[in-house]
Amino acid sequence: MIPLPFLESPLNTQTFSEEEKEAIAEYFEFQKIPKKQMLQRAGTACKELFFVVKGCLHMYFLDENGTQRTTQFALENWWLSDFLNFSVQRETDFFIESVERAEILSISAANYRKLMDEHPKLESYFRRTFEIGYGAAMHRIKYIQSYSKEETYLRFKEQFPDFVQRVPQYLLASFLGLTPEYLSELKKKSIS
Amino acid sequence: MIPLPFLESPLNTQTFSEEEKEAIAEYFEFQKIPKKQMLQRAGTACKELFFVVKGCLHMYFLDENGTQRTTQFALENWWLSDFLNFSVQRETDFFIESVERAEILSISAANYRKLMDEHPKLESYFRRTFEIGYGAAMHRIKYIQSYSKEETYLRFKEQFPDFVQRVPQYLLASFLGLTPEYLSELKKKSIS
Repeated sequence: MIPLPFLESPLNTQTFSEEEKEAIAEYFEFQKIPKKQMLQRAGTACKELFFVVKGCLHMYFLDENGTQRTTQFALENWWLSDFLNFSVQRETDFFIESVERAEILSISAANYRKLMDEHPKLESYFRRTFEIGYGAAMHRIKYIQSYSKEETYLRFKEQFPDFVQRVPQYLLASFLGLTPEYLSELKKKSIS
Repeated sequence: MIPLPFLESPLNTQTFSEEEKEAIAEYFEFQKIPKKQMLQRAGTACKELFFVVKGCLHMYFLDENGTQRTTQFALENWWLSDFLNFSVQRETDFFIESVERAEILSISAANYRKLMDEHPKLESYFRRTFEIGYGAAMHRIKYIQSYSKEETYLRFKEQFPDFVQRVPQYLLASFLGLTPEYLSELKKKSIS
């Protein structure tokens, strides 16, 4: 059976029998993917939700100059999609791609709907997951409203040192709204 | 019985009997509040979730200069809280206040937990609500990453003309990261 690590999450307070787990697994596809594998393309129907078992994904768009701008990273145990367009089955504005080699689960919008109908015990886990995701996004907006890009980088490095080491620097720059050159200068300054 | 308009939302696909509705209503408090009524104070335990029946609330923080910065507005049929700190019952970083005269429902964190346990049929509605809220927050971040503050105002005005008319201009400026003076200049420019 494919792994379903989200059932082991502290956000899941329900118990599922082996039969239920097997039934739930049927709705998902498990894939091992290389670095920089494209999973979703802007301008196409947003029809999949991804879960990161191992590795890292990111969601980005291309700005008016064609520059890649990362809006969201997803590490182990995170769900990722353009949730707004996934919910209403419209075209997405975002690309989703692996940052590094990854193991992922994916579920189609149709299967996701069926899964919730057939296994309503899962609703509570997803409600908590999105409640926290929504809350975290508001705190991210507060961060953007509070700090200059330079301060944001310094605080981000303090809060998530492993993450700053892990992701390619041009993606970190894209996420923070800096040019890679300016990020590299900031790093030199903060070391010296 | 107090009104529960969220049960009429298209995001709620479940049916509730009159008895169930009465039981659900018991978990909530209904209040009519004046303009600028403080509902939550930064630095205190985040223990309430609000629903706007009528009117408008906003959530803001004070930046390093003591300036009020609005992170989120909530109009009719929206839920508002510092969801991250509400979920884990920590102190909140945000103030919540009414923008105009309002009618609101509030529910304590303890009651919210009990409500979900006793009426799991509600999980699906809240899951969809937060899924869409989370998705919309990502699109808001994309907006911030894409456009200058000036462009953001112009696009915002185009997308939400009624809202731009409705809220006090200093709050709109705070939400968009503009000074009230600069917003007023932009408005003059865009009229002429």
